[in-house]
Amino acid sequence: MSYIPLTPDLLRHWLSQHNALSQILGGTPPTWRIREVSNGNLNLVFLVDGLTGKLCCKQSLPHVRVAPEWPMPLERALYEARYMQTIAPYVQGLTPQLFYYDSDMFLLVMENLTPHEVLRSALIGDRAPEGFSSIIGRYVAQSVHGTSWISQPFEKGSQLLTEFSGNTALTRITVDLILTDPYRPCDRNPKPLPELEADIHFLQNDPAIHVSVNKLQHRFLTQKQSLLHGDLHTGSIMLHHSDVRVIDGEFALMGPIGFDCGLYLANLFIHALAVPHKAHFIQAEISAFWHSFASHLRELLKQSSRGDAWSLSLPSIDRQKLWDEFLHSILQDMAGFFGLELIRRTIGFAQVADYTLCPTPKAELVARKQAVLTGHTLIKQAKHLHTFDAFLNLLAPCFKAL
Amino acid sequence: MSYIPLTPDLLRHWLSQHNALSQILGGTPPTWRIREVSNGNLNLVFLVDGLTGKLCCKQSLPHVRVAPEWPMPLERALYEARYMQTIAPYVQGLTPQLFYYDSDMFLLVMENLTPHEVLRSALIGDRAPEGFSSIIGRYVAQSVHGTSWISQPFEKGSQLLTEFSGNTALTRITVDLILTDPYRPCDRNPKPLPELEADIHFLQNDPAIHVSVNKLQHRFLTQKQSLLHGDLHTGSIMLHHSDVRVIDGEFALMGPIGFDCGLYLANLFIHALAVPHKAHFIQAEISAFWHSFASHLRELLKQSSRGDAWSLSLPSIDRQKLWDEFLHSILQDMAGFFGLELIRRTIGFAQVADYTLCPTPKAELVARKQAVLTGHTLIKQAKHLHTFDAFLNLLAPCFKAL
Repeated sequence: MSYIPLTPDLLRHWLSQHNALSQILGGTPPTWRIREVSNGNLNLVFLVDGLTGKLCCKQSLPHVRVAPEWPMPLERALYEARYMQTIAPYVQGLTPQLFYYDSDMFLLVMENLTPHEVLRSALIGDRAPEGFSSIIGRYVAQSVHGTSWISQPFEKGSQLLTEFSGNTALTRITVDLILTDPYRPCDRNPKPLPELEADIHFLQNDPAIHVSVNKLQHRFLTQKQSLLHGDLHTGSIMLHHSDVRVIDGEFALMGPIGFDCGLYLANLFIHALAVPHKAHFIQAEISAFWHSFASHLRELLKQSSRGDAWSLSLPSIDRQKLWDEFLHSILQDMAGFFGLELIRRTIGFAQVADYTLCPTPKAELVARKQAVLTGHTLIKQAKHLHTFDAFLNLLAPCFKAL
Repeated sequence: MSYIPLTPDLLRHWLSQHNALSQILGGTPPTWRIREVSNGNLNLVFLVDGLTGKLCCKQSLPHVRVAPEWPMPLERALYEARYMQTIAPYVQGLTPQLFYYDSDMFLLVMENLTPHEVLRSALIGDRAPEGFSSIIGRYVAQSVHGTSWISQPFEKGSQLLTEFSGNTALTRITVDLILTDPYRPCDRNPKPLPELEADIHFLQNDPAIHVSVNKLQHRFLTQKQSLLHGDLHTGSIMLHHSDVRVIDGEFALMGPIGFDCGLYLANLFIHALAVPHKAHFIQAEISAFWHSFASHLRELLKQSSRGDAWSLSLPSIDRQKLWDEFLHSILQDMAGFFGLELIRRTIGFAQVADYTLCPTPKAELVARKQAVLTGHTLIKQAKHLHTFDAFLNLLAPCFKAL
């Protein structure tokens, strides 16, 4: 079947032609309940319920779903499928299972996560149980370790570069929206609140910020440390009680590990800015993420012995120091990309719904100003951070004010 | 024509089937003089003289030429062709012109450089005119700048990753022979001079060296800054008076810029160790390389405006500082890889002919000990270097002793 955007009826037909999938659903095709639930920006998503099982079907559209004039290559589904297949062995239980990928239809058929909800919605609705960030910390540690040059022969890392370097359409979004646009006048930037105009003018004219952002651009593009999710925010995670799953890996690319960490934490932090009474809860989640990430990564590095990076392993060498320095550089990257994401989600394209929780326009303005100010500080200070506590200290003025 | 290792007669026939090449040669095929001059480790090379022109034909063999039991994928010719095609626009006049690449025969047909000779031979024969290293400095600056993320949209860099990440067979040689084997007992390491055994034992059991080499392994594999030559030693350069050309790009890969710099300078330095009366000459070449490289790179960076890295360019930002830090990190990488190459060429597989110039076994031992000692120091000190003079100072004890 050559590419055609699916409707429920077309999907019903397509599924009926795939025995293994039909068997998961059970019953006959007419009995399957198919609902379109496309609420992201880019894709068609259908949930399918059968007599004995259920599926989630996600298909690329040739344009941005909510902006049909913005073309978008279909191949992003391929990169999402590759990402899921690549990391599956390392993060068991933390992603939906991928049952099938149709490369003609650019269609992924995967586990239907019900009654899970998107973490961002759970946070907004005050339904997120504490501790979910420990699981995300483990997810990032396992996925980036498994795909690093430390855990496997360099030929495998080279293969990942070959497989993922073509994902330029979605990386272009990151390069433009996160790494560039907010720091210069640009038509894509939405019109800001008038009270933020001075802060934005300062940001766009601060030479020190420009130098730091330039360096983060270079790090993002040159540091091919591991396979990243590439878009790890609270909208890319689903949960139900303690069952936490990372979804939407279509931005996957080889890059600096701190990028996944920074994006995730910045999205959490914005939630705290928008909902000040949850500041302690969010601060605890931020700490839980880092401590889980760092301890899992150390544990995995301790067991690594197959990589061409760090292949020398005299019993007497100070591996602790090697791990410390590695985590230190990840921390600095994390802080820098955290700052970029804070600013992008506050004044750039594709802002976040969390700000709608602010009870008054004044409260929203305060929250957004804190985000811009903290982002500004983080971007400049990232390279001077030596501990996670120092990172937290840079957030502390906000947490105390909340 | 499907792959078959060429003989002069087969090559004559193949050339006669390619009009554009036949026309360069002129005359009729029987009048062409074809000589096999394969003196590298890996390939067949033929020089062809015709009535009006001449060609050089280089073909991959399915094994190491001098070790038929060591298989080697034919595709390395493809990577060499890609490298030549990619960097040609940036380094005009500094490589042989590539006329044709036959992807079935794994055959490159290029400019026949005569009466050029290999730089290593020219050095050994005392025929290298001073100043050639300035040209190599320019070559490295131009090739790495043109293929960086600073000079072009990131999609171009991603394309280079896609095109070159598959060159794993030759990168495996680098990973093993330069980055790993010398630091542990390994069958590939040749039996050393008995008087060097203690030095090698120390090297293979120094935890600080192991930590530093581990980090250099990680940098080599993760820092995809630019397209590198990957094997830039004095045997990969041909010259005739002031006409200097870089050849043999089959090790090409995306990597840290300092790698090309370090390999080149280490090979020069070994020549000075082997021929002490040329120490000043070589020291001047080492300085000429760096100053030419750094000044050309700064000049090119000054003109860069199309890259997604460093894309923010407020007139007031301190670009000088950005360039300084970039060159500083290249210098540190250069020093580390210089140390690795010194050691590899002295105690590892594929040592260099320069040592045969030592007039006595004792002189050779002194030279080799100095190489191991200097390599040892450089590997450990590389990350603490802040200026080129500090780098030269680490070489100075040898230059003074010479």
